[in-house]
Amino acid sequence: MMQESFSVELVSWKDAVSLSKDLAECIRGRYHPDLVIAIGRGGYVPGRIVCDSLLITTLTSIRIEHWGEAASCYGEAHIRYPLSVDVEGQDILVIDDVTDTGKTLIAAREYLQSLRPRSIKTGVLHHKTTSAFIPDFYAKVVPEWHWIVYPWALHEDLTGFVEKVMTRRSATPGKIRSSLVNTYHMRPRMDDVLFAVRELVERGRAEQTGDGYRLKNQM
Amino acid sequence: MMQESFSVELVSWKDAVSLSKDLAECIRGRYHPDLVIAIGRGGYVPGRIVCDSLLITTLTSIRIEHWGEAASCYGEAHIRYPLSVDVEGQDILVIDDVTDTGKTLIAAREYLQSLRPRSIKTGVLHHKTTSAFIPDFYAKVVPEWHWIVYPWALHEDLTGFVEKVMTRRSATPGKIRSSLVNTYHMRPRMDDVLFAVRELVERGRAEQTGDGYRLKNQM
Repeated sequence: MMQESFSVELVSWKDAVSLSKDLAECIRGRYHPDLVIAIGRGGYVPGRIVCDSLLITTLTSIRIEHWGEAASCYGEAHIRYPLSVDVEGQDILVIDDVTDTGKTLIAAREYLQSLRPRSIKTGVLHHKTTSAFIPDFYAKVVPEWHWIVYPWALHEDLTGFVEKVMTRRSATPGKIRSSLVNTYHMRPRMDDVLFAVRELVERGRAEQTGDGYRLKNQM
Repeated sequence: MMQESFSVELVSWKDAVSLSKDLAECIRGRYHPDLVIAIGRGGYVPGRIVCDSLLITTLTSIRIEHWGEAASCYGEAHIRYPLSVDVEGQDILVIDDVTDTGKTLIAAREYLQSLRPRSIKTGVLHHKTTSAFIPDFYAKVVPEWHWIVYPWALHEDLTGFVEKVMTRRSATPGKIRSSLVNTYHMRPRMDDVLFAVRELVERGRAEQTGDGYRLKNQM
């Protein structure tokens, strides 16, 4: 089986908080939103930090859902949890973690425009230049595409990556971590790898062997 | 003027993340929610972290608003941003940062019960025993009441406290910080104090003098 390989960046809490504050400084003095909308789930933490830095107390959320696999360019986005307040005539700021394909913010803007706000601006921590959507504000440009794992999505993302490097042949946790290093050039903590492996066992996707873990035959 | 004095605890990002993960471990295996609802704005970060730790992808938010001053026991809570999805027959987990008076979670539960979920459980980082509401899950008990400042509310809370210790007499930033230490037994970083002072100047509540800052006469 061909192993899909690309680089994965693990962002620490320190850096994620710092980037969120940088994003707030990009916005300060340039836009004065009546309402900040965090895109669920990636925008929750940056949205909260941006609000605190700019002393904005009006924070709400919407959720955009993608059809198809994570990190897929072919999924279609739709609004899973709509907005619960009237934004007609308001200046709104939409916050997400990253522009990857850009489909999330394209869908968000299209949806929000239908609610007739006065203006919509968007901000993210990382703007990948591969994105079809260019946000108004971003803390950092990412010119070379790679996958970014935020600390608030570490377990979710890592569980996915661990499942991708595991096979039907038993491997020790150390070997699984080595596969992550080789395939994705990431250096996760051993206990985070173990957390992911145990989660897969819990979900019936993997099983423990004498000396390690392996994927289970899926029915 | 009598200065109201009480202890204020500044929670670091490291501790707040750790408490959020502890809260997730309290919930693991004991409750399997269909939906997690973060209370805005304090529940955004813990809600996101709890979801990641438990690999729950369904996260949304509501906002409860209090009438009256922050930290007041006499305010009445109401639902500012309602829920935008149907929760009838679902198991829902409500996450907030703290139970202080308990009014937020009392209002949240009352509101959510009206939407006929199958069950509602609640989780917070800190449960103050002074609270009229006892959450189902909490990372830490706070037996001696004090004010807790979470890192995602540092600027907002600190701006309030700085305004409380400032007077019409000019004080240097170092003196303002000393007043915070003396009055609230907190040790904020100097740059966070300066950020708060400048915010008050920006808002026309304070003004710069030759050697420091003082409150402005309010019209």
